[in-house]
Amino acid sequence: MTLERVAPAVAAAVAAVKEDRLWRRHLQIAEIGATGRGGVNRQALTPEDAEARRRVLGWAAARGFEASVDPIGNLFIRRAGRSPTARPIVSGSHLDTQPTGGNFDGVFGVLAALEVLEAVDDAGVETVHPLELAIWTNEEGARFQPTTMGSAVFAGALALAAALATVDAHGVGVEQALAQTLKAAPVVNRRAFRFPMTAYLEAHIEQGPVLEAAGKTIGVVSGIQGLRWFRVEVTGEEAHAGTTPRARRRDALLAAVDMVRALRDLMLDATDTARFTVGRFEVRPNSPNTVPGQVLFTIDFRHPDGTVLSRLGDEVAAVCRAHAGGCAVDVIETLNSPPTEFDPRICELIQAAAARQGLPHMRIVSGATHDAKYMAGLCPTGMIFVPCERGISHNEGERASAADLAAGARLLAEVMLRLN
Amino acid sequence: MTLERVAPAVAAAVAAVKEDRLWRRHLQIAEIGATGRGGVNRQALTPEDAEARRRVLGWAAARGFEASVDPIGNLFIRRAGRSPTARPIVSGSHLDTQPTGGNFDGVFGVLAALEVLEAVDDAGVETVHPLELAIWTNEEGARFQPTTMGSAVFAGALALAAALATVDAHGVGVEQALAQTLKAAPVVNRRAFRFPMTAYLEAHIEQGPVLEAAGKTIGVVSGIQGLRWFRVEVTGEEAHAGTTPRARRRDALLAAVDMVRALRDLMLDATDTARFTVGRFEVRPNSPNTVPGQVLFTIDFRHPDGTVLSRLGDEVAAVCRAHAGGCAVDVIETLNSPPTEFDPRICELIQAAAARQGLPHMRIVSGATHDAKYMAGLCPTGMIFVPCERGISHNEGERASAADLAAGARLLAEVMLRLN
Repeated sequence: MTLERVAPAVAAAVAAVKEDRLWRRHLQIAEIGATGRGGVNRQALTPEDAEARRRVLGWAAARGFEASVDPIGNLFIRRAGRSPTARPIVSGSHLDTQPTGGNFDGVFGVLAALEVLEAVDDAGVETVHPLELAIWTNEEGARFQPTTMGSAVFAGALALAAALATVDAHGVGVEQALAQTLKAAPVVNRRAFRFPMTAYLEAHIEQGPVLEAAGKTIGVVSGIQGLRWFRVEVTGEEAHAGTTPRARRRDALLAAVDMVRALRDLMLDATDTARFTVGRFEVRPNSPNTVPGQVLFTIDFRHPDGTVLSRLGDEVAAVCRAHAGGCAVDVIETLNSPPTEFDPRICELIQAAAARQGLPHMRIVSGATHDAKYMAGLCPTGMIFVPCERGISHNEGERASAADLAAGARLLAEVMLRLN
Repeated sequence: MTLERVAPAVAAAVAAVKEDRLWRRHLQIAEIGATGRGGVNRQALTPEDAEARRRVLGWAAARGFEASVDPIGNLFIRRAGRSPTARPIVSGSHLDTQPTGGNFDGVFGVLAALEVLEAVDDAGVETVHPLELAIWTNEEGARFQPTTMGSAVFAGALALAAALATVDAHGVGVEQALAQTLKAAPVVNRRAFRFPMTAYLEAHIEQGPVLEAAGKTIGVVSGIQGLRWFRVEVTGEEAHAGTTPRARRRDALLAAVDMVRALRDLMLDATDTARFTVGRFEVRPNSPNTVPGQVLFTIDFRHPDGTVLSRLGDEVAAVCRAHAGGCAVDVIETLNSPPTEFDPRICELIQAAAARQGLPHMRIVSGATHDAKYMAGLCPTGMIFVPCERGISHNEGERASAADLAAGARLLAEVMLRLN
């Protein structure tokens, strides 16, 4: 199907995207697990997660869209195409949240895809390929680790048995919580892991301040930056703060402070591309008049360029050792996730559609991870970002505008149709 | 009484100091509150403290030494002199310990003074002035704050009513705990606060590594260094570690790290005299993938020179503000205790006696505070330090040698007699 032939159908579907319907549904889902402080607590496979799934399944059923579920609880909601054998064009995200989460992270990607399916339906457009909404299980990893569990199991990066055996802080396992969720939000049809897709798209709030600061409505996401986590343990010797001369001290805190400074200098780049964070920093015995004997700190280092991620990440241990003073230091790498590059053709398609729709847009690298990371290994994949206020996310104060969300859904509609 | 005339009596009393008696009594007191891991938990005004007082009172009573008690529970044990009106020469320390304390901190000063009284008695020496052992209440400040409570109240630096109203973590007050202690270790005679003394001397383990490192048996303590405490609160903004560019961050941890480095540089001296410790350092939310929004840290800064203590201490707030980056910073001074200088004549006396006894000695400034600090405001005061292994104190691994303890007691005996 050429671009010329689909253009009127695309225009009709885009015009059928309803800002007020999309916004109302955000408000309705925000009621499920509402904390009373503007945010939600709707962690994976809780009764609240089940209720949100039931609500979306209800909207889909009212349209006659068929739902199916895979063994880790990922949901797929299909608007059928002309060809029953054509690979679906899939878009989605997640309904679970952080314990003090916002109303847009994940939810927007789910409701935007549903909005596209309904808008295409309202416009009476017939597609060759089925259009599908995917709802991934446990993206947040707040209750059950790791994050992006559903998409990782779907893609084969995490064994189903391992995921099912994961327990939460109260000893409840994924297997039991999943069974309860699927009982409360039942789906009859089964779907296999790694079923073939034409493409996967995910709409999401940026969760960062870049689009807002640049005055752009759309981020054309070129990929997800790579991430390495380190845990640094510095061991000195506890000593009396009043009686121990400097020359006799092995002060774990001063050593750790030197390490953090040197690591910050290592990661310093003119383009402000590297992300370097020491988020956790704990001192023992943590008493005002005792020289610290132990410090534990974590390093979260991210970069979109795999070469840079490797080179600088590989220097972390040596930099820590070089600034250990008289202390012992252990550097343990706890996570190493290389960058993900999305399909250039999908990026081009998104960018061209944004230009045609007159939406201010820019290329952007995702700082956070998403289910799209695992889909990128299976089929042509891309993401669409819309701004969120001051970049605040994973926070009850998360905000996005109805107009930006609708713009993202209109763009998604055009891209999904142009993939036909 | 001239030096020539007392010399034979001094020699006799010094010769009567018994290393084995002194050591055995350390072992006996160490049984009271023994933790089973080599240390003791004998906090102030507990049944264990009462039992230790009862034991020392028993040894004194067996000699016919008279005991008295003041309203905060400080004990005074007197070997009478020839003149009933002469001001006593007093020496002592404390019997209370840290929750995981050692067997020498405080106890040595008590038992050394008792040993002197007994040795003088054994030698049949008659003094003009009474010789007294003082046992100060709650030096450690572990159960009831502040530290050196008994000597502070004695000296009038802390009101008796305020001390009696102090409660421990379980809500038990000093008044009640003191009454129970005095019931379990009763003393009939009353003593007034601030009664006149000829001089006050205190023997103590160094609690630092200087004497051991220098190969000296005796530290002639010239004073107690001054101490200033600060509490620094740094407020930035929590942000997503993956999505927030460096330029948009207000990272409270990186700001605090810069402050600590700059403060360390400020306090750096060629003579290694200043003591600078950041002992407490707490981060919020302390999550690996969140840019820290808040850091609280403490500064413990000590110096024997009051001018330097004032000058550098007064720069702390400005240095913190200069390194705050985009963060807000509050610097609160929580303690300011100027240096104490002991009486130069007492120091000379101690040094001359150490030289005569052939004891390797050196001048030293006390890094920790002691009851002698308050006595120094009332009468000529001095302290004698003996080494402790690797400077370890406030620790169940605290160690001192029987020979060093006896050497300290012999020196104390000579000094107390020469003050007659």
